[in-house]
Amino acid sequence: MNSGSPELAIEGPIATLTLRRPEQANRLTTDDLARLSQLIAEVNTKDSVLVLQLRATGKYFCSGYDIGSIGAERTVDFAQVVDALELARPVTIAVLHGGVYGGATDLALACDFRVGTPDVDMFMPAARLGLHFYQTGLERYVTRLGLGNAMRLFMTAEKQDARQMKDSGYLTHLVDAAALDEEVAKLAQACASMAPIALLGMKRHMNRIARGTLDAEALQADIRRSMASEDLGEGQAAWAEKRAPRFKGR
Amino acid sequence: MNSGSPELAIEGPIATLTLRRPEQANRLTTDDLARLSQLIAEVNTKDSVLVLQLRATGKYFCSGYDIGSIGAERTVDFAQVVDALELARPVTIAVLHGGVYGGATDLALACDFRVGTPDVDMFMPAARLGLHFYQTGLERYVTRLGLGNAMRLFMTAEKQDARQMKDSGYLTHLVDAAALDEEVAKLAQACASMAPIALLGMKRHMNRIARGTLDAEALQADIRRSMASEDLGEGQAAWAEKRAPRFKGR
Amino acid sequence: MNSGSPELAIEGPIATLTLRRPEQANRLTTDDLARLSQLIAEVNTKDSVLVLQLRATGKYFCSGYDIGSIGAERTVDFAQVVDALELARPVTIAVLHGGVYGGATDLALACDFRVGTPDVDMFMPAARLGLHFYQTGLERYVTRLGLGNAMRLFMTAEKQDARQMKDSGYLTHLVDAAALDEEVAKLAQACASMAPIALLGMKRHMNRIARGTLDAEALQADIRRSMASEDLGEGQAAWAEKRAPRFKGR
Repeated sequence: MNSGSPELAIEGPIATLTLRRPEQANRLTTDDLARLSQLIAEVNTKDSVLVLQLRATGKYFCSGYDIGSIGAERTVDFAQVVDALELARPVTIAVLHGGVYGGATDLALACDFRVGTPDVDMFMPAARLGLHFYQTGLERYVTRLGLGNAMRLFMTAEKQDARQMKDSGYLTHLVDAAALDEEVAKLAQACASMAPIALLGMKRHMNRIARGTLDAEALQADIRRSMASEDLGEGQAAWAEKRAPRFKGR
Repeated sequence: MNSGSPELAIEGPIATLTLRRPEQANRLTTDDLARLSQLIAEVNTKDSVLVLQLRATGKYFCSGYDIGSIGAERTVDFAQVVDALELARPVTIAVLHGGVYGGATDLALACDFRVGTPDVDMFMPAARLGLHFYQTGLERYVTRLGLGNAMRLFMTAEKQDARQMKDSGYLTHLVDAAALDEEVAKLAQACASMAPIALLGMKRHMNRIARGTLDAEALQADIRRSMASEDLGEGQAAWAEKRAPRFKGR
Repeated sequence: MNSGSPELAIEGPIATLTLRRPEQANRLTTDDLARLSQLIAEVNTKDSVLVLQLRATGKYFCSGYDIGSIGAERTVDFAQVVDALELARPVTIAVLHGGVYGGATDLALACDFRVGTPDVDMFMPAARLGLHFYQTGLERYVTRLGLGNAMRLFMTAEKQDARQMKDSGYLTHLVDAAALDEEVAKLAQACASMAPIALLGMKRHMNRIARGTLDAEALQADIRRSMASEDLGEGQAAWAEKRAPRFKGR
């Protein structure tokens, strides 16, 4: 895989976004932000995609946004890209290894799952740089990790290891490095085998509940869609027959 | 105890609701929902009851709502019963053993405490059945277990064991099977020995705070009631005299 | 240090409030509340102070508000003092040892960090006294510890040890007694070395997010201040030069 801007690959129901600047610890440039934004929008148009993995090449997952570019002109804000990832249509999995630093911690936090290996560490240097983090990022930290953990990461800029990241809820899965690919594949397959209307509806609405922005009417509409779906009949039949269901997404 | 619809027993300040279909792993029928609803309403009228236990007979706690009946006509929605349990007047304790599956996971989550033994496991198969879970249930999962844990249970439908259930906050107490009855009795007695106005007011308002639906005026009214109560004087006196208080609920 | 009402000491960017009634396990009198309120207001006027420590002399941290004085006339409510501490301008650290009881548990919970030693324990006897706790305190418990932990502490009035306090998120740091002063100094120094605009803005807004009372415009104004600050340039330069930044708070 060549080095350069982020790349999208789709295999059946599973899409993979890969950061590809290993020489710069996958530091994101302003162009990378625009590209990521584009690729997330592209994934959202593919009805067949149920899972989106976020991966990175090289020793570190991602060292965040280029510090020298803070405040520079750009077409897409860092916060916008992260928010778009939180709102992405598929179930999202950040596959973490090495370091996750600065804005990259929020990028991964916007995913539904964060699978990491024991060598992962993280830190959030905003206050040490003199930078006040953006609203949706602070909200993600507080609502997903709890106030105590969010406060500790932001106020001290300390480095936390994989164990601490698991204890705070930052890592949803902590797995051996040798088992990482298998575990991620298992998780992705599990999600991809669910009934799409129920899976994607609940993913969306649970994220909104966590943020305090639930659209109760949209949720009711998704419930009605699932109740009227062919997939519900198939799910009930497969359950009764103790076989794997074959869902069609309708 | 005969098998059949749920049963209510009251002994002093402690009421017990028991699921009694052990041959069907306590799967709830539409009639059971109506009956549960009735019994919860009955408990709410008894001023003397301070604690409500939810128990089940047989090998499994409860395997949820009958999957074949999803969408069938019924007088009481599953969600309504669970919401009524969350709003029940007494402090509620789910006493869990064996399996807790599907809608039963939400039934127990609506209780104030969930005491389980090391043999307990749980899973939430909604997405595998093609079913979009109802709003108040998704809200309960997200607000009580955190987004990461809620997402994992709903998106993967994986089975979690007692250790995972304790770590996620699903189990508030994990105790040895041999000690279960004693530990539950101790917990129930502890709650039942408190001053009723303070106990039941704080139970109600903390549940509402967690849900983001606090009625601040109702809370202030309960504070005024407690400040004007005979029980506050008795509580202060008993504290000073280092003796157990004798509360009257007024 | 003489015994008596709370005392304030300021050394560079670090202020320390000390409770000084060791013979009464630092039980707070109505006069102490008024004094604490005054001292917090004084700290808020000092631009140079970035960290406020809350400490206590003697064997116990604090046994809360004098139970005999509940309902008595006073110039400052207990809740007002605790709320003022949550809203204090500096980053706040409660340094806990021995017992933390009753209202004192909320006083410490209003701090951004709670560092404790293995000998610490806590309990919340409100329901046993017949007292309905005040709104902001119940909200702090539920939003910072989760509903399950808050419910358990209030409904049972049980004593919890340092391990349970760490697991519930009550203690943000659990350290050996011999290392307490060093660890607190390290934590205070870490916070005090950050860029003030970013540090204090994020501290304030994360607390509001946790409480559901974010002022989005005030947050945007603080972001603009940090983007326009000299300190941002200094932070970026120091980062590039791999040296410690010298912030000026502007």
